[in-house]
Amino acid sequence: MVEHSGLDIMCPNKYCHSSVSSSSSERDKRMFTRIRLSLSADYPKKNAEILSGQYGTNLLLIGSALMLAIANHGPAVREEHLLSFLCGLMALQLAWMMWYILVRDRHESAHTEKDKHATTCWIRGGLTLLALLSLVMDAFRIGYYVGYHLCVSAVLGVYPVLHAAHTIAQVHFLWFHIKDVIKSFETFERFGVMHAVFTNLLLWCSGVMSEAEHFLKNHVRRVSVENQGNYSTEYSEPSCNCSTSTCSLFANSLFYLYPFNIEYHIFVSAMLFVMWKNIGRTLELHSTRRRPIPVSRALSLGPVLGLLALASTITVLVVYLTHVEQSMETRQAAVSMFYMYGIVMLLSMCSAAAVGLLIYRAQHCPFDTSKNPSRELDTQLLVGSSVGSWLMAWCSVASVVSSSSSAPHRWTNGLYSLLMVLEKYVQNLFIIESLYRQEEQELPASPEVFSVTSSLAPPYGGIINRAYETQERGVEEGEDSAVVYGRKPSQVPLSVGTNLPPPPRLKRKLLKNIALFLTMCNICLWILPAFGCRPQYDNGLEEETFGFEIWTTVLNFAVPLNLFYRMHAVASLFEVFRRV
Amino acid sequence: MVEHSGLDIMCPNKYCHSSVSSSSSERDKRMFTRIRLSLSADYPKKNAEILSGQYGTNLLLIGSALMLAIANHGPAVREEHLLSFLCGLMALQLAWMMWYILVRDRHESAHTEKDKHATTCWIRGGLTLLALLSLVMDAFRIGYYVGYHLCVSAVLGVYPVLHAAHTIAQVHFLWFHIKDVIKSFETFERFGVMHAVFTNLLLWCSGVMSEAEHFLKNHVRRVSVENQGNYSTEYSEPSCNCSTSTCSLFANSLFYLYPFNIEYHIFVSAMLFVMWKNIGRTLELHSTRRRPIPVSRALSLGPVLGLLALASTITVLVVYLTHVEQSMETRQAAVSMFYMYGIVMLLSMCSAAAVGLLIYRAQHCPFDTSKNPSRELDTQLLVGSSVGSWLMAWCSVASVVSSSSSAPHRWTNGLYSLLMVLEKYVQNLFIIESLYRQEEQELPASPEVFSVTSSLAPPYGGIINRAYETQERGVEEGEDSAVVYGRKPSQVPLSVGTNLPPPPRLKRKLLKNIALFLTMCNICLWILPAFGCRPQYDNGLEEETFGFEIWTTVLNFAVPLNLFYRMHAVASLFEVFRRV
Repeated sequence: MVEHSGLDIMCPNKYCHSSVSSSSSERDKRMFTRIRLSLSADYPKKNAEILSGQYGTNLLLIGSALMLAIANHGPAVREEHLLSFLCGLMALQLAWMMWYILVRDRHESAHTEKDKHATTCWIRGGLTLLALLSLVMDAFRIGYYVGYHLCVSAVLGVYPVLHAAHTIAQVHFLWFHIKDVIKSFETFERFGVMHAVFTNLLLWCSGVMSEAEHFLKNHVRRVSVENQGNYSTEYSEPSCNCSTSTCSLFANSLFYLYPFNIEYHIFVSAMLFVMWKNIGRTLELHSTRRRPIPVSRALSLGPVLGLLALASTITVLVVYLTHVEQSMETRQAAVSMFYMYGIVMLLSMCSAAAVGLLIYRAQHCPFDTSKNPSRELDTQLLVGSSVGSWLMAWCSVASVVSSSSSAPHRWTNGLYSLLMVLEKYVQNLFIIESLYRQEEQELPASPEVFSVTSSLAPPYGGIINRAYETQERGVEEGEDSAVVYGRKPSQVPLSVGTNLPPPPRLKRKLLKNIALFLTMCNICLWILPAFGCRPQYDNGLEEETFGFEIWTTVLNFAVPLNLFYRMHAVASLFEVFRRV
Repeated sequence: MVEHSGLDIMCPNKYCHSSVSSSSSERDKRMFTRIRLSLSADYPKKNAEILSGQYGTNLLLIGSALMLAIANHGPAVREEHLLSFLCGLMALQLAWMMWYILVRDRHESAHTEKDKHATTCWIRGGLTLLALLSLVMDAFRIGYYVGYHLCVSAVLGVYPVLHAAHTIAQVHFLWFHIKDVIKSFETFERFGVMHAVFTNLLLWCSGVMSEAEHFLKNHVRRVSVENQGNYSTEYSEPSCNCSTSTCSLFANSLFYLYPFNIEYHIFVSAMLFVMWKNIGRTLELHSTRRRPIPVSRALSLGPVLGLLALASTITVLVVYLTHVEQSMETRQAAVSMFYMYGIVMLLSMCSAAAVGLLIYRAQHCPFDTSKNPSRELDTQLLVGSSVGSWLMAWCSVASVVSSSSSAPHRWTNGLYSLLMVLEKYVQNLFIIESLYRQEEQELPASPEVFSVTSSLAPPYGGIINRAYETQERGVEEGEDSAVVYGRKPSQVPLSVGTNLPPPPRLKRKLLKNIALFLTMCNICLWILPAFGCRPQYDNGLEEETFGFEIWTTVLNFAVPLNLFYRMHAVASLFEVFRRV
């Protein structure tokens, strides 16, 4: 929108300039130009946004309707229908990506602007890794299809092939085009990018649904085996025998690869959304130099504690998965162990993030208010995806308080849930403040500012703080500040303020350690639910208060959101680690 | 955020200004000021937003957890618990509002800035009406409690009394303070406003839940009576007899008042959210003069067709409600009648909105890109709340296509659903474009601009269009344009462009008629589901494909959103009617 008003400001000049001469023949010519222009003129940007946004939303809803029908296990709508729909969407996206790449390559002479904030090398690297695992999954699916090809629909064979092609093309697109700021065929490209966003979102939904169904199936089987009841499957199994010997291997391995495939699609979809937001944008010019990552000799406590957390997480995962399948007592012990572990983890994460916030409070700094769609989206996604586990946590608290059960893990569950709420609350604040604080290199070094600023104190708080904040950093950051204010660093007087706690070097060391520790903790808390450690299914407390139906629905909504939150927090915290 | 960067720009000057003199005693003084300031300095705005936003979200989630537990009809969590929670929230909001009003009144000398876009007189008038109906509802509730006071919890008596006080105080707040741009105690006030937003949102949720439960109860009773089955109620009824004679009257009338109470809370919550967005904002100065509404002699076709639609809607409602309770055949006839009526309505609404969009295409106009949180929220709410009925529509389409039923209304249902998608799609585009087009009075009259603009055509499309667009309006709007470009209207040359279709007078007449017609149609489509005409429950088609559980869940999500959409569209379209 900014660029639009920029043009508007230019308008009066043109207008004044032109209001001098006019004759009747000129008038006719103008009339013609005007009609031609009003027909070919660009479609308004806001309208194009709404048009393509509504298109994408409807794609998602069609897919959701199909999934809901499948969830009913009725005869009318089967999985093949959904897969065919997804194949159609992927084929369309492939066609659009090819078109886009061809057009760009042809007009390569015209330089395409790039939004440097859109993504970083290491995010793309991580996505490539996830994509590779998705390709392995496609290979397993093809193998499964070959084994059962006599009695299953051909769509089950076409889908993985198309998905593999889609994945390869999309990774190429991510590496070479995701930062593009599109300025031609804007309305058409908006549809293309939106289509890609929602195709990935639907692939995510479909992955989440398969995963949840698999998990639920396991859970129901386990409970019915325990109750010596009959286990009647409602879930479709192929009606013929496998013609190769590897079918069950493929089918079982698939579910260990699902988490990676799911994360891959949701991440790509977020990045494409940033690309969509960038269409037609006018980039502001900044001093683009980035500070190189300093060799961090200071990384001591953070990674050590993080590795400790990782090791204990893997232990907990293995113990939990082996114990929960056994008798009632061992299961209860496993659940109790999980909650104790969780409380320790969450407590240390809360303290780490709180220390980070306190460090920020001790050293004020203005917030960077420049336009950056990628960062805005990050913020919204963090808070938005917290909702899932917050709902889960409050449901647990409600049932802990109202229940009369004497389960040993009743109160640890309640404490764990409250800490879960608190941890996300504090961690979101920490991440968002870290991302929005101005990078300190852009600030001027000014120890002489006090006599003025203290008299201006009440109305100009922002200025004062910035001046205070940066003076200690004058020595090391003076070079960069020259870019902003056009002063040579040698002109900047140094000294003053060395006795203020905490000094910036220590501060940065601390923040780096905190960010790294939180990153590793979030990886831990992603691993546990992603690989099947979900005590919410096994503790029985919430199921009693909410009933099986409602509680399963809550979990099917909350668990995928929570997984996404953890992954997203890992990416954001790593970004924080690099910035501070 | 705009104001922040404004301060940043000022910073270098201060800095240069101050770097002249410094002595050792001054330095000590500064150090002291600096420590004091860095402790008392304002909390960053972004952090305060996230803090209060996360607080509100968690309030909502606690309430949702309680509601989910109640939906299970278990013994642990009962309605009284939810009502007590709501009472607590309302009492807190009352306290905050009193504090706010007292503080403002004390500092009345300090002029509070007002955001004139925040709301209009007629919206507040409408809300006051809804609030009055809510008060009637509270009176009925008190009456009901008096009748059963021997055997129901005291909370059922406290709640309506507190709700009535809350409603009265809130309406006072809406009239005198909702436009305030808060600039003191910002962080605290953010919490206060956010608390108010989410209290209203929870009251909305609780209303929606009661309403859905009531509707479902009726539906289940009707179906079981039809199948000569036994109707066993899971729903709680008081265990003693009513001590007055009016209990059942109160209980039955309540449900006709619910829709108004529900709309009241969601609207107030949206308005409070705009107030929250405005906290700490620096308003841009505009030429604030509004064009008075012209006496519309041109209102001919729009209101006539609208009244026709309203009359037929009431007929359909009455016929539907009386027929659907009877035998299977009459019910099917009623459902078929509803779909035929719906198709005609939606077709005419689609055409009306499409004509509106075509008129806009014929006459280009730049979009108003100034910051206006109220309008941004309107846009997001319109598109966001469309999701409900889109999901419902796509589910219907999925079941129509996949079903093998021979119900007479199968294909009309499919057509109706597709038209529902299309109608919201086109209507959203129309409303959003209408709200974002620059009010034409603000534009300059310039018939002399062509010789320059045609040579500048490709890069400066936006400017040209604005120049073209406005020239016909030179005569009537010249007076206002002077505000923007600082020229006297008498200096602006007139004439040219009288032969371009459609001339602005006719265009405005048409747009006014369209807006009014759409307003009335949206009222019609609000009335039907609000008062119980919901063929999605009665046609049986989707229930067969999705199963009773899933389909009821979809409806419980989609129907309230759809009701909100209709009300919100009515408000927006009325705004459009006044603007064009």
